[in-house]
Amino acid sequence: MMKLEHLGIAVKNLTDAERLFSDLLGTNPYKQEAVPSENVVTSFFRVGEVKLELLESANEDSAIAGFIDKRGEGLHHIAFEVPDIEAETERLKQMGFNVLYDKAKVGADNKLVNFIHPKSASGVLVEVCQEIAE
Amino acid sequence: MMKLEHLGIAVKNLTDAERLFSDLLGTNPYKQEAVPSENVVTSFFRVGEVKLELLESANEDSAIAGFIDKRGEGLHHIAFEVPDIEAETERLKQMGFNVLYDKAKVGADNKLVNFIHPKSASGVLVEVCQEIAE
Repeated sequence: MMKLEHLGIAVKNLTDAERLFSDLLGTNPYKQEAVPSENVVTSFFRVGEVKLELLESANEDSAIAGFIDKRGEGLHHIAFEVPDIEAETERLKQMGFNVLYDKAKVGADNKLVNFIHPKSASGVLVEVCQEIAE
Repeated sequence: MMKLEHLGIAVKNLTDAERLFSDLLGTNPYKQEAVPSENVVTSFFRVGEVKLELLESANEDSAIAGFIDKRGEGLHHIAFEVPDIEAETERLKQMGFNVLYDKAKVGADNKLVNFIHPKSASGVLVEVCQEIAE
Protein backbone atom coordinates (compact mmCIF):
# COMPACT_ATOMS: atom_id res chain seq x y z
CA MET A 1 0.00 0.00 0.00
CA MET A 2 1.38 3.35 -1.03
CA LYS A 3 1.71 6.44 1.14
CA LEU A 4 1.54 10.00 -0.20
CA GLU A 5 5.00 11.45 0.51
CA HIS A 6 4.79 14.88 -1.12
CA LEU A 7 3.19 17.14 -3.69
CA GLY A 8 5.37 19.02 -6.16
CA ILE A 9 4.41 22.53 -7.30
CA ALA A 10 6.22 24.25 -10.17
CA VAL A 11 6.84 27.94 -9.42
CA LYS A 12 8.49 30.80 -11.28
CA ASN A 13 10.15 32.41 -8.29
CA LEU A 14 10.97 30.36 -5.21
CA THR A 15 11.24 33.32 -2.83
CA ASP A 16 7.82 34.69 -3.83
CA ALA A 17 6.25 31.23 -3.65
CA GLU A 18 7.81 30.51 -0.24
CA ARG A 19 6.25 33.70 1.10
CA LEU A 20 2.88 32.86 -0.45
CA PHE A 21 2.74 29.28 0.86
CA SER A 22 3.99 30.39 4.28
CA ASP A 23 1.01 32.78 4.43
CA LEU A 24 -1.35 30.10 3.15
CA LEU A 25 -0.20 27.26 5.39
CA GLY A 26 0.68 29.30 8.46
CA THR A 27 4.13 27.68 8.62
CA ASN A 28 7.55 28.35 7.10
CA PRO A 29 9.55 26.08 4.78
CA TYR A 30 11.92 23.84 6.75
CA LYS A 31 14.59 23.38 4.11
CA GLN A 32 15.85 24.44 0.69
CA GLU A 33 17.75 22.06 -1.54
CA ALA A 34 19.35 22.42 -4.96
CA VAL A 35 19.06 19.33 -7.19
CA PRO A 36 21.66 19.92 -9.92
CA SER A 37 20.83 16.62 -11.70
CA GLU A 38 17.28 17.95 -12.27
CA ASN A 39 18.28 21.61 -12.76
CA VAL A 40 15.95 22.72 -9.98
CA VAL A 41 16.01 24.43 -6.62
CA THR A 42 13.44 23.16 -4.16
CA SER A 43 11.86 24.29 -0.91
CA PHE A 44 9.96 22.00 1.47
CA PHE A 45 7.01 22.56 3.81
CA ARG A 46 5.47 20.06 6.19
CA VAL A 47 1.67 19.77 6.20
CA GLY A 48 0.87 17.02 8.67
CA GLU A 49 2.31 13.74 7.37
CA VAL A 50 2.80 15.11 3.88
CA LYS A 51 5.41 17.45 2.40
CA LEU A 52 4.84 20.20 -0.08
CA GLU A 53 7.79 20.72 -2.46
CA LEU A 54 8.12 23.98 -4.40
CA LEU A 55 10.29 23.63 -7.51
CA GLU A 56 11.96 26.53 -9.30
CA SER A 57 13.89 25.94 -12.49
CA ALA A 58 17.64 26.59 -12.15
CA ASN A 59 18.00 27.00 -15.92
CA GLU A 60 16.10 26.68 -19.20
CA ASP A 61 16.98 23.00 -19.62
CA SER A 62 14.91 21.76 -16.69
CA ALA A 63 11.63 19.89 -17.00
CA ILE A 64 10.17 22.55 -14.69
CA ALA A 65 11.02 25.34 -17.17
CA GLY A 66 9.33 23.32 -19.92
CA PHE A 67 6.27 22.67 -17.75
CA ILE A 68 5.86 26.36 -16.85
CA ASP A 69 6.34 27.46 -20.49
CA LYS A 70 3.60 25.09 -21.56
CA ARG A 71 1.10 25.18 -18.68
CA GLY A 72 2.18 27.94 -16.30
CA GLU A 73 2.87 27.55 -12.59
CA GLY A 74 0.90 24.96 -10.66
CA LEU A 75 0.59 21.38 -9.44
CA HIS A 76 3.39 19.39 -11.07
CA HIS A 77 3.53 15.90 -9.55
CA ILE A 78 2.43 13.69 -6.68
CA ALA A 79 4.88 11.35 -5.00
CA PHE A 80 4.21 8.05 -3.25
CA GLU A 81 6.71 6.44 -0.90
CA VAL A 82 7.29 2.74 -1.40
CA PRO A 83 9.41 0.28 0.58
CA ASP A 84 11.23 -1.19 -2.47
CA ILE A 85 11.33 1.09 -5.50
CA GLU A 86 12.74 -1.49 -7.93
CA ALA A 87 10.10 -4.07 -7.04
CA GLU A 88 7.40 -1.40 -7.22
CA THR A 89 8.44 -0.05 -10.63
CA GLU A 90 8.55 -3.64 -11.90
CA ARG A 91 4.99 -4.17 -10.62
CA LEU A 92 3.87 -0.90 -12.26
CA LYS A 93 5.45 -1.85 -15.60
CA GLN A 94 3.65 -5.19 -15.50
CA MET A 95 0.39 -3.33 -14.82
CA GLY A 96 0.99 -1.43 -18.08
CA PHE A 97 2.23 1.88 -16.68
CA ASN A 98 4.86 3.76 -18.66
CA VAL A 99 7.76 4.10 -16.19
CA LEU A 100 10.32 6.76 -17.17
CA TYR A 101 13.65 5.27 -16.03
CA ASP A 102 14.95 1.72 -16.27
CA LYS A 103 16.50 2.18 -12.86
CA ALA A 104 15.60 4.67 -10.12
CA LYS A 105 17.70 7.86 -9.92
CA VAL A 106 18.85 9.90 -6.94
CA GLY A 107 16.42 12.82 -6.50
CA ALA A 108 15.79 15.50 -3.89
CA ASP A 109 15.38 14.88 -0.15
CA ASN A 110 17.67 11.83 0.05
CA LYS A 111 15.42 9.66 -2.11
CA LEU A 112 15.64 7.25 -4.98
CA VAL A 113 12.98 8.30 -7.48
CA ASN A 114 11.24 7.10 -10.59
CA PHE A 115 8.22 8.44 -12.47
CA ILE A 116 5.14 7.24 -14.29
CA HIS A 117 4.53 9.19 -17.49
CA PRO A 118 1.34 11.32 -17.23
CA LYS A 119 0.09 9.76 -20.48
CA SER A 120 -0.37 6.45 -18.67
CA ALA A 121 -1.86 7.95 -15.47
CA SER A 122 -4.81 10.23 -16.40
CA GLY A 123 -2.52 13.20 -17.01
CA VAL A 124 -0.88 12.97 -13.58
CA LEU A 125 2.91 12.86 -13.27
CA VAL A 126 3.35 10.24 -10.53
CA GLU A 127 6.63 9.88 -8.66
CA VAL A 128 7.50 6.79 -6.66
CA CYS A 129 10.26 7.27 -4.14
CA GLN A 130 12.21 5.39 -1.52
CA GLU A 131 14.32 6.87 1.27
CA ILE A 132 18.03 6.10 0.79
CA ALA A 133 19.32 4.15 3.79
CA GLU A 134 21.97 6.00 5.81
CA MET B 1 -2.08 24.65 11.03
CA MET B 2 -3.65 23.11 7.96
CA LYS B 3 -3.92 19.42 7.16
CA LEU B 4 -3.98 18.03 3.64
CA GLU B 5 -7.40 16.42 3.30
CA HIS B 6 -7.45 15.34 -0.34
CA LEU B 7 -6.13 15.79 -3.87
CA GLY B 8 -8.56 16.28 -6.74
CA ILE B 9 -7.81 14.80 -10.16
CA ALA B 10 -9.89 15.71 -13.23
CA VAL B 11 -10.58 12.66 -15.41
CA LYS B 12 -12.48 12.07 -18.63
CA ASN B 13 -13.95 8.71 -17.70
CA LEU B 14 -14.47 7.77 -14.07
CA THR B 15 -14.65 4.01 -14.66
CA ASP B 16 -11.37 3.96 -16.59
CA ALA B 17 -9.66 6.19 -14.04
CA GLU B 18 -10.93 4.09 -11.11
CA ARG B 19 -9.39 1.00 -12.69
CA LEU B 20 -6.13 2.82 -13.36
CA PHE B 21 -5.76 4.27 -9.85
CA SER B 22 -6.79 0.95 -8.30
CA ASP B 23 -3.89 -0.66 -10.19
CA LEU B 24 -1.54 2.17 -9.25
CA LEU B 25 -2.41 2.38 -5.56
CA GLY B 26 -3.12 -1.29 -4.96
CA THR B 27 -6.48 -0.44 -3.38
CA ASN B 28 -10.03 0.12 -4.61
CA PRO B 29 -12.15 3.29 -4.34
CA TYR B 30 -14.27 3.24 -1.18
CA LYS B 31 -17.13 5.41 -2.42
CA GLN B 32 -18.67 7.21 -5.37
CA GLU B 33 -20.65 10.39 -4.93
CA ALA B 34 -22.52 12.63 -7.37
CA VAL B 35 -22.31 16.36 -6.58
CA PRO B 36 -25.12 17.91 -8.64
CA SER B 37 -24.31 21.47 -7.46
CA GLU B 38 -20.88 21.11 -9.10
CA ASN B 39 -22.03 18.98 -12.05
CA VAL B 40 -19.53 16.25 -11.22
CA VAL B 41 -19.40 12.61 -10.22
CA THR B 42 -16.59 11.73 -7.84
CA SER B 43 -14.80 8.63 -6.64
CA PHE B 44 -12.66 8.45 -3.50
CA PHE B 45 -9.55 6.44 -2.58
CA ARG B 46 -7.76 6.41 0.76
CA VAL B 47 -3.97 6.73 0.68
CA GLY B 48 -2.87 6.76 4.30
CA GLU B 49 -4.29 9.89 5.97
CA VAL B 50 -5.09 11.55 2.67
CA LYS B 51 -7.89 10.99 0.14
CA LEU B 52 -7.62 11.00 -3.59
CA GLU B 53 -10.74 12.31 -5.35
CA LEU B 54 -11.34 11.56 -9.01
CA LEU B 55 -13.73 14.01 -10.67
CA GLU B 56 -15.62 13.36 -13.88
CA SER B 57 -17.78 16.03 -15.43
CA ALA B 58 -21.51 15.21 -15.40
CA ASN B 59 -22.19 17.73 -18.18
CA GLU B 60 -20.54 20.43 -20.28
CA ASP B 61 -21.32 23.18 -17.77
CA SER B 62 -18.99 21.91 -15.06
CA ALA B 63 -15.69 23.51 -14.13
CA ILE B 64 -14.13 20.07 -14.67
CA ALA B 65 -15.26 19.99 -18.33
CA GLY B 66 -13.71 23.45 -18.82
CA PHE B 67 -10.49 22.38 -17.11
CA ILE B 68 -10.14 19.25 -19.27
CA ASP B 69 -10.93 21.20 -22.46
CA LYS B 70 -8.18 23.67 -21.64
CA ARG B 71 -5.49 21.53 -19.98
CA GLY B 72 -6.47 17.90 -20.36
CA GLU B 73 -6.85 15.40 -17.55
CA GLY B 74 -4.67 15.77 -14.48
CA LEU B 75 -4.14 17.28 -11.04
CA HIS B 76 -6.99 19.73 -10.43
CA HIS B 77 -6.89 20.95 -6.82
CA ILE B 78 -5.48 20.34 -3.35
CA ALA B 79 -7.73 20.58 -0.31
CA PHE B 80 -6.80 21.50 3.24
CA GLU B 81 -9.05 20.77 6.19
CA VAL B 82 -9.54 23.61 8.66
CA PRO B 83 -11.44 23.70 11.96
CA ASP B 84 -13.42 26.89 11.16
CA ILE B 85 -13.85 27.60 7.46
CA GLU B 86 -15.35 31.09 7.84
CA ALA B 87 -12.56 32.24 10.14
CA GLU B 88 -9.97 30.66 7.84
CA THR B 89 -11.31 32.26 4.65
CA GLU B 90 -11.42 35.62 6.45
CA ARG B 91 -7.75 35.14 7.43
CA LEU B 92 -6.86 34.20 3.84
CA LYS B 93 -8.67 37.27 2.43
CA GLN B 94 -6.77 39.49 4.84
CA MET B 95 -3.53 37.86 3.65
CA GLY B 96 -4.44 38.98 0.12
CA PHE B 97 -5.68 35.66 -1.30
CA ASN B 98 -8.51 35.79 -3.81
CA VAL B 99 -11.22 33.63 -2.19
CA LEU B 100 -13.94 32.49 -4.62
CA TYR B 101 -17.10 32.51 -2.51
CA ASP B 102 -18.32 35.04 0.07
CA LYS B 103 -19.59 32.13 2.14
CA ALA B 104 -18.57 28.47 2.05
CA LYS B 105 -20.77 26.12 -0.04
CA VAL B 106 -21.75 22.50 0.53
CA GLY B 107 -19.39 20.30 -1.52
CA ALA B 108 -18.65 16.58 -1.81
CA ASP B 109 -17.95 14.25 1.11
CA ASN B 110 -20.12 16.08 3.69
CA LYS B 111 -17.96 19.20 3.68
CA LEU B 112 -18.30 22.94 3.57
CA VAL B 113 -15.88 24.17 0.92
CA ASN B 114 -14.35 27.35 -0.40
CA PHE B 115 -11.53 27.94 -2.89
CA ILE B 116 -8.56 30.20 -3.46
CA HIS B 117 -8.26 31.29 -7.09
CA PRO B 118 -5.14 29.78 -8.73
CA LYS B 119 -4.09 33.28 -9.83
CA SER B 120 -3.38 34.17 -6.22
CA ALA B 121 -1.70 30.83 -5.31
CA SER B 122 1.08 30.11 -7.84
CA GLY B 123 -1.34 28.49 -10.28
CA VAL B 124 -2.70 26.04 -7.68
CA LEU B 125 -6.46 25.77 -7.10
CA VAL B 126 -6.59 25.47 -3.31
CA GLU B 127 -9.71 24.21 -1.54
CA VAL B 128 -10.29 24.77 2.15
CA CYS B 129 -12.86 22.49 3.70
CA GLN B 130 -14.56 21.74 6.99
CA GLU B 131 -16.50 18.61 7.91
CA ILE B 132 -20.20 19.36 8.44
CA ALA B 133 -21.20 18.39 11.99
CA GLU B 134 -23.72 15.53 12.15
